[in-house]
Formats: sequence, C-alpha cells, structure tokens
Amino acid sequence: MKKFVNDPQQFVPEMLKGIELANPGTLRYVPEYNLIMRADAPRDDKVSIVQGSGSGHEPAHVMVVGKGMLDAACPGDVFSAPPSDYVYETTKLMRSEKGVLHIINNYTGDRMSFDMGRELAEAEDIKIATLIVDDDVAVKDSTYTVGRRGVAGNFFVIKAVGAASERGAELDELVKLGERVNSVTRTMGMALTSCTPPAKGSPLFELGEDEMEMGVGIHGEPGRRREKLANANAIIDELLEAVVSDLPYGSGDEVALMINGLGGTPISELYIVYGHAHQRLADRGIEVTRSYVGEYCTSLDMAGASLTLVKLDDELNELFDAPAEVAVRIF
Amino acid sequence: MKKFVNDPQQFVPEMLKGIELANPGTLRYVPEYNLIMRADAPRDDKVSIVQGSGSGHEPAHVMVVGKGMLDAACPGDVFSAPPSDYVYETTKLMRSEKGVLHIINNYTGDRMSFDMGRELAEAEDIKIATLIVDDDVAVKDSTYTVGRRGVAGNFFVIKAVGAASERGAELDELVKLGERVNSVTRTMGMALTSCTPPAKGSPLFELGEDEMEMGVGIHGEPGRRREKLANANAIIDELLEAVVSDLPYGSGDEVALMINGLGGTPISELYIVYGHAHQRLADRGIEVTRSYVGEYCTSLDMAGASLTLVKLDDELNELFDAPAEVAVRIF
Repeated sequence: MKKFVNDPQQFVPEMLKGIELANPGTLRYVPEYNLIMRADAPRDDKVSIVQGSGSGHEPAHVMVVGKGMLDAACPGDVFSAPPSDYVYETTKLMRSEKGVLHIINNYTGDRMSFDMGRELAEAEDIKIATLIVDDDVAVKDSTYTVGRRGVAGNFFVIKAVGAASERGAELDELVKLGERVNSVTRTMGMALTSCTPPAKGSPLFELGEDEMEMGVGIHGEPGRRREKLANANAIIDELLEAVVSDLPYGSGDEVALMINGLGGTPISELYIVYGHAHQRLADRGIEVTRSYVGEYCTSLDMAGASLTLVKLDDELNELFDAPAEVAVRIF
Repeated sequence: MKKFVNDPQQFVPEMLKGIELANPGTLRYVPEYNLIMRADAPRDDKVSIVQGSGSGHEPAHVMVVGKGMLDAACPGDVFSAPPSDYVYETTKLMRSEKGVLHIINNYTGDRMSFDMGRELAEAEDIKIATLIVDDDVAVKDSTYTVGRRGVAGNFFVIKAVGAASERGAELDELVKLGERVNSVTRTMGMALTSCTPPAKGSPLFELGEDEMEMGVGIHGEPGRRREKLANANAIIDELLEAVVSDLPYGSGDEVALMINGLGGTPISELYIVYGHAHQRLADRGIEVTRSYVGEYCTSLDMAGASLTLVKLDDELNELFDAPAEVAVRIF
C-alpha cells in the first residue's frame, strides 16, 4: 500500500491530532469522541454548525472547521458514518442557546446515526435542526442512499450557513437558507481510478486501464455507467450536460463553478477541466462569476473530479464573499 | 493514461488558459510567450518578481502569481526549462524602473535558460538580479544539477521577497533577503510512486510495490537511495533527521514546518505526516510556530511528500504574515 500510514486503525485519530497541532489555539481535537471543534465554540449568540460523515473525504469536513464555517466536525472511520453516541456527544459539546444545526450529506448510514444522536440530545432539551444535502445528479438511489447523494456541493451550504450564523441568524433561518442553497446546487463526478482504504490495503473496486466510471459516488460506489476512457473535453462535456440540464441552468444565469479533485488528480489537470467547463458554459450564455478549483470533497487517493454549479444571487454572493478561516491553506 | 488530457502538447497552454479564466481581471495569460502575469504588473514603484521552471510542479509557479507573491511566472513544458526567449520576453513585459528579480530553483536547464534570457534583456538596459534557491539536502549534485536542487522551500523565498517588494524594497535588498531565507531553509522529499508525464503516457521510472525512493527530486530523479517501504513514522523520522542535522536546527529554534504533497497523496495522509514531524521536533526542543500542510511544489501525480523547515525570526514572521492573493484557494 503506497500510503503514509502507521496502524490503519489509527489513521483517523492520527490525522485529527495533526490538524490540532497545525492549528494551535484555534482548533481542538477531542479524542474521546473523535471530533474536531473550534476552540472558541460554542457561543450562546450563535447557532453551532456541525457536520459529520465518514472520513476519507478530506478536506471535508474536519479541515473546514473554523470561523465562518463549521463549529465542529464529527467524522467516522474511513467511509463509515460516525457512531450515534459521538454525534450525541458532539451535539452536547456544541450546545448553544440559539441551537445546533446538523448538516448531513444524504447517505443512509449518516442519516441513521444523526437521527439517533439528535434524539438523544433532544432528550436533554438541546434545540436541534437538520439540513440534508443531496446535490449529486448522477443517480436517483444508490448503493448507500435512498434518494440523491450529497457530495462536494455541501461546501456551498456550509459556507452560506456558516457566514449567516456568524451574524446571529436564527436556527430556522439557517435551515431555510441551507435548503435554498442546496436547491440551486448540482454536482456530478467521475472516477479515472479506484481508491485504496488504509484498512483494506488494496483498491476498493477494479477499473480497467481503458475504463472510467461516470457518476461515481464519493465512496467509489457505481455511478451511471462504466465507459471507455475519453479525453478531458469529452468527459467534461458529459458531466456538464448532466448537471446543467438537471436544475436546469439557463442563459442569463450567473453561477459558481467548482471543479473538485477526488484526491489523486493534480491541480494542473483540474485547471484544464475548469477552462473547458467555463468556456462551454459561456457558449450556453451561463456566466461563471465565482470559481473554485482544488480539493473540497475527496475519495482518498482516487483520480477523478466532480463538477458543481450553484446558481447565484445577491444574497449568496454576499455570503460566499464573507471571511472564513479554516485549517486548509496555501498561505 | 488516467489523466484529464486532450492533446498532450496542449497540456500546459490549456492549464494556463484555465488559470486565466478562473481569475478574470487579476491574472493574464499571454499565449505568445506561455506566461501568466498579474494584470496590474509591472509597476515602476515595485521590483517585478519572476520565477520560471518546468511545468508539472503546480501550484508552483503559475498558480502563485498575484499580489504579495510573483508578478509573473514563465513555465516551460512539463519538466522542461522555459525557452530563453520566453524568459527574455517575460522580463521585458515585467520591466520596471526598480528592476526585475529572477528567482530560479537550482536546476542546470533553468539556470542556462535564465542566464541567456537575462543577457538579452540586459542588452536593452533592463535592471535584473538573480536569486538561486537550493534548499534540497538530499544530494550534493544530481542528474540535472550542479550543487543542491531547489524544491518546495522556494515558496518561503517567494513569500518573503514578494511581501517586501510590495512595500517598495530595492532590488539589492530583495536579493539579500531572498538569500537569507534560502540560507535558513532546508527540504527533503521522498516518493512512494512514480509519476506519469502526459506526453510520455507511462510512468517516468519504475518503483516496485514494496519500494520507496528517499531523497527523490521533483522530476523523479534518483535521491539518496531506494529502500523497502516503511510506515509513516519511520519515513518521517528519516526525512526529519536529514533536514534537522543539515543546517542544523537546534533546541530553542522557532521554525516553520511545511509538509508538501507531491501531487498524488491525499491531504489526510499529509496531516498524519505533519503530526508526527511536529511532535518529533518538539522532542528536540524545536518549536513549530508556523505550519503549512498541502501541495506547494508537486511532481504531477506522484504519491509522496517533502518536509521543509525554515528557521524563523521577527522579520520573517512579519513577512510571512503579510497578505498574499494567489489563484489557488479553497474559499
């Protein structure tokens, strides 16, 4: 296994410890419950924003805890939902007068775990609301999902509600805002290669040298179909057609365009993808006014990418412009 | 070849076009000379900072053009030095009353190309100075170098001189500052896998399933030795010992620690590497007060990482804190 790993069982805890050490004073790792939280959370003048999911999607979500984003992230093991008692403990730690908002990417395991964690916390009179993100247009139901999956588009939901929560927005306002962002956000991804979970030590699935998986899920689960490997522009055209036609986005729309790498694809290639997508959108009269190129929601070391569009308006532009301070940085 | 690529000959131009489209109004792509420049450069009240190198190391250097960093980057094709006439044209475009600073990672091809480009530009009375970065402790001479190679540590040189140049520092002051940063910066890298140049379509070198290359160069050139694959902590201990003992860094020092991914390693693993390195440095009485975890100087899709230390002082801390606006971003 060509990975930086010691004991595969300690993969997630060692990563979380590293995040804490790299962010002294601002982030705190709580080993008992496997969570990362802002050192200054919770605050009673602010709704606490919490997201959990399996690990292996970094920077989602443990590396997007910070001012203007999440107050805490509650990860499970690699590609496994967090245990419900950890959801419960995270919620208790984030208890605030204004309430706690759970953001969940739509996967059955995560939803079950958060439902149980929520029930336990509500029994202690903690005010909680839940936001489900389901931006993936690839399949209606999937291996791990009833309904659409939640993937990289969840960053826009977190960014918007994170910014609004800093200004004191109420829990019900944040739910409405998050649902609105989710309703104008669409994503589809594709895999060039499989990925290798540390505890398995070998590729999660097989993909031939001349094959690619269109519409892949972020746990390597099957997408729309397996196809012959194509060149970059043909791949992007297929992703773009699926995403644009779904909402649909149309001439005159202003959009955010995110090209998200799945972990093993270098950023040079992501900019090639970005450039073609931007130009094809312009051909359709759709103007890209915000661009996001990099890794946001990955599948370990998988080579591949996803494409997300968000239909913008003044309120969303203003929230996306608001400052955010997270662990991931270049400078 | 599991890559987002159309015509391999257009790999670099298509990437550069993508960078321009993602940064309208701030960055400009000049196809005639294959360069990326700040839209507001040059300015006569500021030394222009220029770096060139082969492509395939992104974000270095075309994605670190922007306020507080480079004024222009002049890339060659993948793993090839930029042609000297492009260096010349870039320098002419960046002509400023205060001069132009060339930053070069120490590789023979890049030095030759920049030497010739400098001569041509000086014949037109452009004031130029040159800074050589050679932070790699792995080998004294290498396949492509007389003397030490320049690798990921060059980001600290760019950051410091970029910040100082914004405040109007003179050309000779910037040379002194850059040499000082280089003199307290040391790096060593290692590869878990090879990488695949788009025009070759197959791995650049072979590395067995149970092997790793310690001290690898950023073009996949051999390092100190090929070893049996080890666990993360053993790898980090070896990198750290080589880097710490070289300057040497010692008890009481405050340092910046950079864990740089080589392109194919997910950020989850980089934080595992970071955490162990941080703790081992603490064991030696060396305090990490600035941390950088992510991709800074890559080798296409190579899995692996490099470790850089910079000995800090008040002046460097202040320059590293200064704002920088570059293409690469998460938010």
